[in-house]
Amino acid sequence: MSVYLDNAATTFPKPDPVYGAVEHALREIGVGPGRGGYKRSLAASRLVFEAREILASFFGITDSSRLVFTHSATEGLNIAVNGLLKPGDHVVTTTMEHNSLVRPLYAAKNRGVQITWVSADRNGSIDPAAISAALRPETKLIALSHCSNVTGTIQPIASIGDTARKAGVFFLVDAAQSAGCMPINIMDQKIDLLAVPGHKGLLGPQGTGLLYIAEHVDLSPFLLGGTGTSSSDTAQPETMPEKFESGTLNTPGIAGLKAGVEFILKTGIDNIRQKEIKLVSLLLDGLKQLPRVKTFTAYNAESRGGAVSFTVEGIDPATIGFHLDADFDISVRVGLHCAPMAHKTIGTYPHGTVRVSPGFFNTDKDIAFLLDALRSIIH
Amino acid sequence: MSVYLDNAATTFPKPDPVYGAVEHALREIGVGPGRGGYKRSLAASRLVFEAREILASFFGITDSSRLVFTHSATEGLNIAVNGLLKPGDHVVTTTMEHNSLVRPLYAAKNRGVQITWVSADRNGSIDPAAISAALRPETKLIALSHCSNVTGTIQPIASIGDTARKAGVFFLVDAAQSAGCMPINIMDQKIDLLAVPGHKGLLGPQGTGLLYIAEHVDLSPFLLGGTGTSSSDTAQPETMPEKFESGTLNTPGIAGLKAGVEFILKTGIDNIRQKEIKLVSLLLDGLKQLPRVKTFTAYNAESRGGAVSFTVEGIDPATIGFHLDADFDISVRVGLHCAPMAHKTIGTYPHGTVRVSPGFFNTDKDIAFLLDALRSIIH
Repeated sequence: MSVYLDNAATTFPKPDPVYGAVEHALREIGVGPGRGGYKRSLAASRLVFEAREILASFFGITDSSRLVFTHSATEGLNIAVNGLLKPGDHVVTTTMEHNSLVRPLYAAKNRGVQITWVSADRNGSIDPAAISAALRPETKLIALSHCSNVTGTIQPIASIGDTARKAGVFFLVDAAQSAGCMPINIMDQKIDLLAVPGHKGLLGPQGTGLLYIAEHVDLSPFLLGGTGTSSSDTAQPETMPEKFESGTLNTPGIAGLKAGVEFILKTGIDNIRQKEIKLVSLLLDGLKQLPRVKTFTAYNAESRGGAVSFTVEGIDPATIGFHLDADFDISVRVGLHCAPMAHKTIGTYPHGTVRVSPGFFNTDKDIAFLLDALRSIIH
Repeated sequence: MSVYLDNAATTFPKPDPVYGAVEHALREIGVGPGRGGYKRSLAASRLVFEAREILASFFGITDSSRLVFTHSATEGLNIAVNGLLKPGDHVVTTTMEHNSLVRPLYAAKNRGVQITWVSADRNGSIDPAAISAALRPETKLIALSHCSNVTGTIQPIASIGDTARKAGVFFLVDAAQSAGCMPINIMDQKIDLLAVPGHKGLLGPQGTGLLYIAEHVDLSPFLLGGTGTSSSDTAQPETMPEKFESGTLNTPGIAGLKAGVEFILKTGIDNIRQKEIKLVSLLLDGLKQLPRVKTFTAYNAESRGGAVSFTVEGIDPATIGFHLDADFDISVRVGLHCAPMAHKTIGTYPHGTVRVSPGFFNTDKDIAFLLDALRSIIH
């Protein structure tokens, strides 16, 4: 029995149609969109357009041209941070962020952008009032993750979005751990910039991602180059989505991503969420009964995401991970999960935690098998 | 009969093992490298390492950690131009460049970098002496494409590389139209920075690419974020290749790219080159016999690459492309091919040309079919 419980890194397996869609795009379409006027290229354009429309609608975006295909959520966060922030601007963010946001923000700081890091509590939770209190006249952006990749903590983004909108500040949400797992709507949550990976909750292949850029956000482009449009301009075209999509797109990846979202729509995101809640419930209940195990979230499964971090008194997280893999063929992730400040916040720095992250294709049995394995490692 | 002759945009079809490798990586490996210590992730790490080693060796690179996976040649060119050039620096480039180099250079100009555009002759050919003559004490970089995507002109990069090395200037080569089609060796050609797409001559899938960065080139990173290493640093790690590989890699794409290069190694790049020469010869000979057709290169097939541009007196390139597609199911590209200056150089701006670019899987019959089709359109 092989059990994969690292869905916070990438979801595995993917729904079967995802594999089929990638293969179809590779074998039957073959080419990229917008690079030629012939039938095969038009088929690629149609595929990419349909994917863009489905994904836009999935997040409540009415104008799909505002949804840009990236190769990762990291690329989306870099585009947003680099394209928006000028020296003198101020950003409010949190201590729960992944390096994909932390590192671009530190680089921005080096060019004169000011940053306030709002502390989460020991469960990783951010108080919206602390965000409000951090705002200044020169604040341009509130940037944070919807759901922590360490603790699974869901932040109150609707309330923070409200604060941002009222203050006239842009709101950037890193949806790496939430998109596809729980509903996100850019209107309800007043999101101006939304960075999403394609290969996690959206169930697409690696090498895909999305960035939503609201029409009122004036963003400089990041990657410059051929767009298949306005070829005669030496400057990057201002038209969307081409402004942010230089170079040949990952059409097979986008085909797979489209199939992933279609699977979510067919299954129902509420059913996906209920499945996650059920698995996380079983996991949290089981962990509670193990000796010397400490979990890092006060919340019940209904109000948290899929990533569950824990430590075992007297055993290094790396040792637990090693035994789970070597003796039981269970894949979990151990360490800092590219989010060192989050571990400082919850008190697990520098050794980090063992992180278990179930996905839609995990079963109750998988969780029971993990708990048995842990029992035998810890005993 | 359906004939694809737009291999300068992307090669199609791919060798069969490429499809299989992508599917294997998606279905059997599933996860990314370096994001966990478990077996499945180690398998991904091994795959990516092997791909890096094979690709490095393919270009004569001894330290494979200097070869960075990108998502396109465009990304590689952006990393190189943005990471290297500071205000006051001077760059020598040519009028034959693709927008993937032109646009980053124009953006660099806006931040105070000076640029000299060396003119090619009417056949798209660059005189190395003109490159030498353009050098100044503050010149930091010579940047140009190895082979034109408009005229197929091969530039004398060994000679230009020699000039660059002697002058103490970095040499950036855009190998979009040459990598995988003709030998490139970073030692022989004294290349410091080499940007390569994965989905053209290397026969991999879209969403892949490479950038070679010589050890003596001090380059700032472009995309910042999680690298799976040095997680506790707020700054991007300096270790290679992680410094330039933030975010989850396109592992299925890289698997396909590895299979593409393995196919090239098995087939022999000389055989691939000979096939290209043969097809281009047939094409040029045939075009010569058509009335009112003008080709844009003085060179014979032996000393040129795969892209062949032509115009027909009295018929717009777009009309030719439309009829080839609609009446004969032949895919070629028409217009400016994201290289407007190249068209100004050869005198085909603003309407551009019809571009025919055969690939390894084309046959003599395909070329004959195209020539017949053209004859009937032009008659």
